[in-house]
Amino acid sequence: MAEDKPYAPGLAGIPAARSRVCYLDGAIGKLQYRGYAIEALAESCTFEEVVYLLFHDALPTEGQLEAFRGELEAVRTLPPEVREVLSSLPKRGHPMAALQAGLLAASMADAGDQAADPDHHLRTAVRIVALTPVIVAAWHRIRSGLAPIESPAGIGHAASFLHMLTGEEPSELAAHVMDVALVLHAEHTMNASTFACRVVGSTLADPYTTLSAAVGALSGPLHGGANERVLAMLGQLEGEDQVRPWAEERLARKDKITGFGHRVYKVKDPRATILQELATRLFAESGRTPIYDLAVRLERELADLVGHRGIYPNVDFYSGIVYQKLGVPTDVFTPIFAISRVSGWLAHLLEQLEDNRIFRPTQIWTGDADRKLVPIAERG
Amino acid sequence: MAEDKPYAPGLAGIPAARSRVCYLDGAIGKLQYRGYAIEALAESCTFEEVVYLLFHDALPTEGQLEAFRGELEAVRTLPPEVREVLSSLPKRGHPMAALQAGLLAASMADAGDQAADPDHHLRTAVRIVALTPVIVAAWHRIRSGLAPIESPAGIGHAASFLHMLTGEEPSELAAHVMDVALVLHAEHTMNASTFACRVVGSTLADPYTTLSAAVGALSGPLHGGANERVLAMLGQLEGEDQVRPWAEERLARKDKITGFGHRVYKVKDPRATILQELATRLFAESGRTPIYDLAVRLERELADLVGHRGIYPNVDFYSGIVYQKLGVPTDVFTPIFAISRVSGWLAHLLEQLEDNRIFRPTQIWTGDADRKLVPIAERG
Repeated sequence: MAEDKPYAPGLAGIPAARSRVCYLDGAIGKLQYRGYAIEALAESCTFEEVVYLLFHDALPTEGQLEAFRGELEAVRTLPPEVREVLSSLPKRGHPMAALQAGLLAASMADAGDQAADPDHHLRTAVRIVALTPVIVAAWHRIRSGLAPIESPAGIGHAASFLHMLTGEEPSELAAHVMDVALVLHAEHTMNASTFACRVVGSTLADPYTTLSAAVGALSGPLHGGANERVLAMLGQLEGEDQVRPWAEERLARKDKITGFGHRVYKVKDPRATILQELATRLFAESGRTPIYDLAVRLERELADLVGHRGIYPNVDFYSGIVYQKLGVPTDVFTPIFAISRVSGWLAHLLEQLEDNRIFRPTQIWTGDADRKLVPIAERG
Repeated sequence: MAEDKPYAPGLAGIPAARSRVCYLDGAIGKLQYRGYAIEALAESCTFEEVVYLLFHDALPTEGQLEAFRGELEAVRTLPPEVREVLSSLPKRGHPMAALQAGLLAASMADAGDQAADPDHHLRTAVRIVALTPVIVAAWHRIRSGLAPIESPAGIGHAASFLHMLTGEEPSELAAHVMDVALVLHAEHTMNASTFACRVVGSTLADPYTTLSAAVGALSGPLHGGANERVLAMLGQLEGEDQVRPWAEERLARKDKITGFGHRVYKVKDPRATILQELATRLFAESGRTPIYDLAVRLERELADLVGHRGIYPNVDFYSGIVYQKLGVPTDVFTPIFAISRVSGWLAHLLEQLEDNRIFRPTQIWTGDADRKLVPIAERG
């Protein structure tokens, strides 16, 4: 029972895999997918290119990208059986649970079409990337009493999601902002959901089931959902003049301020820098909102109060404000995280399956042993 | 990125938790739940007593057990919203996926009824134990074109499951055999599904979601399903006289024989001994089946051929044969495993939440870094 082995709660610092998917050095704010800097990817690649990169360890040529976009488009449709399941789900449930159930429905609809070869896994991975936004958008419309909308042909992954969700063609800027947000959230090394994906996948469970488990891990409030909480926090403030005293009080009490700081980053989250520039452009071009003004003010006041003592906004600080501006309901923020992160999860799953070993760690026994079983009539 | 840390594939030998739930020493075939020997528990406790033990670290008094059975019975019913979801699932899908989807439907139906206090977790745990067989039985009937059946009041957990599944009142012996099978599978330390349960639960995902992920891990062919494969293996043999030459050939080729040996046990799996005695009684009292005769013959021939060189039948060797005799369809064998193991998973989840830390191991980076992004038009 390995009682003398060192024990690290949460397996902090314990390597759980050899990986070539994502490199992260939080001390200097360096994040790379497959060796490419996040700044360069966000600047010049669409989400589809990034997914191709994550799956193939190489950026696509124009021909490869066109073919890949075609593959995604071919399966960007709601299977009737999945639609039926989504229609039956309790409407007051959380969209993350609906996404999980939708993935399981797709798995059940695919039964008999299972094969274990790597090509099949790759096809399933592409299908899951395409299907995730379809499920999220469809269920949101169904719970709102609206019919799901098929995606128009020939538009990108991000634009297609916004179209299916809102029923309206997004502006070029809106589609671009969503696309970059998807790029920024695609991968982030071995966090709890990615690790859950590898653990469940290591049993050779089918990929839909494995991804459903990863979505479940992301649904936990210690993992996803920070951008929802940023909006709730800003929503407490009644005006900009409240921001500084509120921030001072928080700092004096040493309370955590949601959306600032990150467990991994000791410097500013590089994704926050990118998203913030984009947010500035979005609100400049399509109109500011009171909550955006509050956010900008809070960041400024905090910078003034604590300077460069490490309290920087993280990617969650601006993402929720941006999604709200794009017409996304608050409880669909974390599903957007999932729509993006399925690509990273699947890259890890494909890597896990290349050289798989089922996860079975050990435990440190801290209980009593050899207890004597007393007959029930004599207990008390 | 911890490149110099020793790396154990599958985290073999790495402690992932401090635990008081289950003690296992495979070298001497010792298995204890909460310090009580599996032999004593199987001999004198019902599954309900074992669940109480796993949740409370103490065996119940008669009064406590009666109250606990009442609690289970009060929630042993199919919520209409869950029934609607089960009815909508693709009928050719696997019952494990249906169980996962049913748990998520229950989670969605419960939305707004979430609380984070330990008492609430315990109530939810009891509800999940009660609901799991209800979902499995209901979906099997629905996919067979039959209406789900409510469990009669006043009968035990195992009898109730058989009744809801088959529509018939099980014999006393059948109910007892199922009850002991549930006791034997309730807990087995930190395997992949239990570990997945702790990883997903560590994000504070809701317990239904967490348990759905654990069921997903168990659905993987490297984890659950061995007893299904035993039946398939025995089904290849056309008569008892084929058994010895078949076994000799397998041994000569050093092929693994499904249902014999166990990764953890170096001696005979103590659960196999218990289940085998029960199987002998079941087939003696209610009639032998050809597959049972083949199984008995195979065990005898293997003992004759290899003696005590460590090839013992494990618990999976007899469980499938027994479940088949009880009228359970083959693809419901692994769901029975889940009906039992939810108790162990939930005990681990409750323990995890007592002193939680989110799982975030590290990784060993083996990829290239600082790759230069070439514009798409210049790639090729």
